[in-house]
Amino acid sequence: MDISEIGKFALLDRLNAGFEARQLTSLKTFDDAAVIAASDRPKQICSVILLEGIHFNLVYMPLKHLGCKAVTHAVSKIVAMNAVPRQILVSVGISSRFNVADVEDLYEGIHAACRMYELDLVENNLVASLTGMSISVTAVGEASEENLCYKSGAKVNDLVCISGNLGAAYMGLQVLERERRIFESNRTQPKLEGYDYVLQKQLHPQARIDMLKTFEDNGIKPTAMTDITDGLASDILHICKQSEVGAKIYIEKIPVSSETFAVCGEMNFDAVTAALNGGDDFELLFTVPVSAYEAIKGLPGFEIIGYISDASQGAYLITPEGNELKIKAQGWTSVSE
Amino acid sequence: MDISEIGKFALLDRLNAGFEARQLTSLKTFDDAAVIAASDRPKQICSVILLEGIHFNLVYMPLKHLGCKAVTHAVSKIVAMNAVPRQILVSVGISSRFNVADVEDLYEGIHAACRMYELDLVENNLVASLTGMSISVTAVGEASEENLCYKSGAKVNDLVCISGNLGAAYMGLQVLERERRIFESNRTQPKLEGYDYVLQKQLHPQARIDMLKTFEDNGIKPTAMTDITDGLASDILHICKQSEVGAKIYIEKIPVSSETFAVCGEMNFDAVTAALNGGDDFELLFTVPVSAYEAIKGLPGFEIIGYISDASQGAYLITPEGNELKIKAQGWTSVSE
Repeated sequence: MDISEIGKFALLDRLNAGFEARQLTSLKTFDDAAVIAASDRPKQICSVILLEGIHFNLVYMPLKHLGCKAVTHAVSKIVAMNAVPRQILVSVGISSRFNVADVEDLYEGIHAACRMYELDLVENNLVASLTGMSISVTAVGEASEENLCYKSGAKVNDLVCISGNLGAAYMGLQVLERERRIFESNRTQPKLEGYDYVLQKQLHPQARIDMLKTFEDNGIKPTAMTDITDGLASDILHICKQSEVGAKIYIEKIPVSSETFAVCGEMNFDAVTAALNGGDDFELLFTVPVSAYEAIKGLPGFEIIGYISDASQGAYLITPEGNELKIKAQGWTSVSE
Repeated sequence: MDISEIGKFALLDRLNAGFEARQLTSLKTFDDAAVIAASDRPKQICSVILLEGIHFNLVYMPLKHLGCKAVTHAVSKIVAMNAVPRQILVSVGISSRFNVADVEDLYEGIHAACRMYELDLVENNLVASLTGMSISVTAVGEASEENLCYKSGAKVNDLVCISGNLGAAYMGLQVLERERRIFESNRTQPKLEGYDYVLQKQLHPQARIDMLKTFEDNGIKPTAMTDITDGLASDILHICKQSEVGAKIYIEKIPVSSETFAVCGEMNFDAVTAALNGGDDFELLFTVPVSAYEAIKGLPGFEIIGYISDASQGAYLITPEGNELKIKAQGWTSVSE
């Protein structure tokens, strides 16, 4: 059977089903990060792998930005547990195309991320690669057990919230891809002026580590949380599945920046599709009890986009006209060798 | 500058130099595994990445064995800290060449390894890959602080010991490569009978988790330890460097199995070279104080192969005739795209 037939998440479920927890040390598995008990503060651990040609294209992604973005990926998963990232482990596979200066550029970005997120690099490994570059980052964080947020905690009537805005990173990628195609066909220098915001979100995104303080300062404890890496559609479905609930998301409430709208207009691209299915936003999708409404509503940089419903009702987008559209996960995108 | 000019370990030193520890939670970095303080038992974390065409060839490596071996790699690093492995996190990159049954085969091996080493799989991730397969395994272990063994603890006059024997995995690889070449040139079915031992060591190696009990039962606390993955030559140099000592290794004491000797004879390959530079043995290289000699000498499956000398004396092999040969690390092997 081809993987696209079954889909990534159904295949992962199938693969995970064979494993039983055998130790009491693992509090939670298969969330944004694994939670491993330590006697005082549980540790969260997550691991991400980025592959050249799939997750990044070095034609327009500077190595320094790539190093930083790889760390952001892993850090974002720890933040999505409402935990503070502390350490990272890095393994890099490099083919003969790369020289010492290239590797140093990559690590300059990793270093910058360590400073930005206040992380220790505690392990570092280089291996030869047959084709291209691969980067594996493992992040370790910590939180008290009462602060931890799992994907499984959403309750019926909870409000669904999002930090920042969505779709910008995806439209940044579309601009870069368009300019790459133009350059390859007629060697015209890329025109990237005026796209600063969406390019910044694609090339130099930041994990929303600042939200940890916002939550703490305002006494907000999300009931469920994840970070938007696969797109809002996939990520709300993960929360619904693990919490055994449904959701109603109001399309007109999904935050999209004016810059993203402008690029969508220029490129004839539907902004809602970019927001729903575009990845790499690293914004936080979370649910809070209705009782937190007062604490949330005045805060800048949050948007309440819907509410949690009963599982039997499924997960739906509500159009401005009141129509309901079933939310579907994206399929597995395989790539030809 | 090309990476082969500077070498992997010098480049890693250069890259690591930019990072300063900023947290008290990291007890030790850049050893076989990173050590992160928890209030009762420090956690060790290590991450390994295996890439198709570099670390494995699916022409002769069954996916099931590969899944198990990838876990063994990571587990072996935890064992080399004298720590008990507890959890693993897995990320797999797969190109369109692989189908659901392939991925399930791989995970059958990961599952078998989890049973064998009593591990929890706590995170699991699949990503698309442009070319081939890549496997990243992060292992988490625990140990009390007094039990932990770093590479940096070897002292002058300590005995240098090795578990099991060396070079078998490397000679297993030579047999597989020879049969692959014969098959590709004239479609002759591979002849693998009679090579069981070396093939087993290459295709289905086991981390020496049993040694943790042997150490404990016999009151042995190594002063320094690492696992043999790059070959004895590289790994003794790591201990010498981090412990700021030298070493004398007696060539005739290096344990090589009779099966490995036989394959070396047949293939006209020097057994000492296989033992010194062959990787993937997953045996433990460790040092103990001279006072532990009585505890060690009667134990099966250990060999004392030399002793630690002053740093100014460097690291040398002693031939049966008493000549000294300087031990050199292997260079970076880059691979053409």
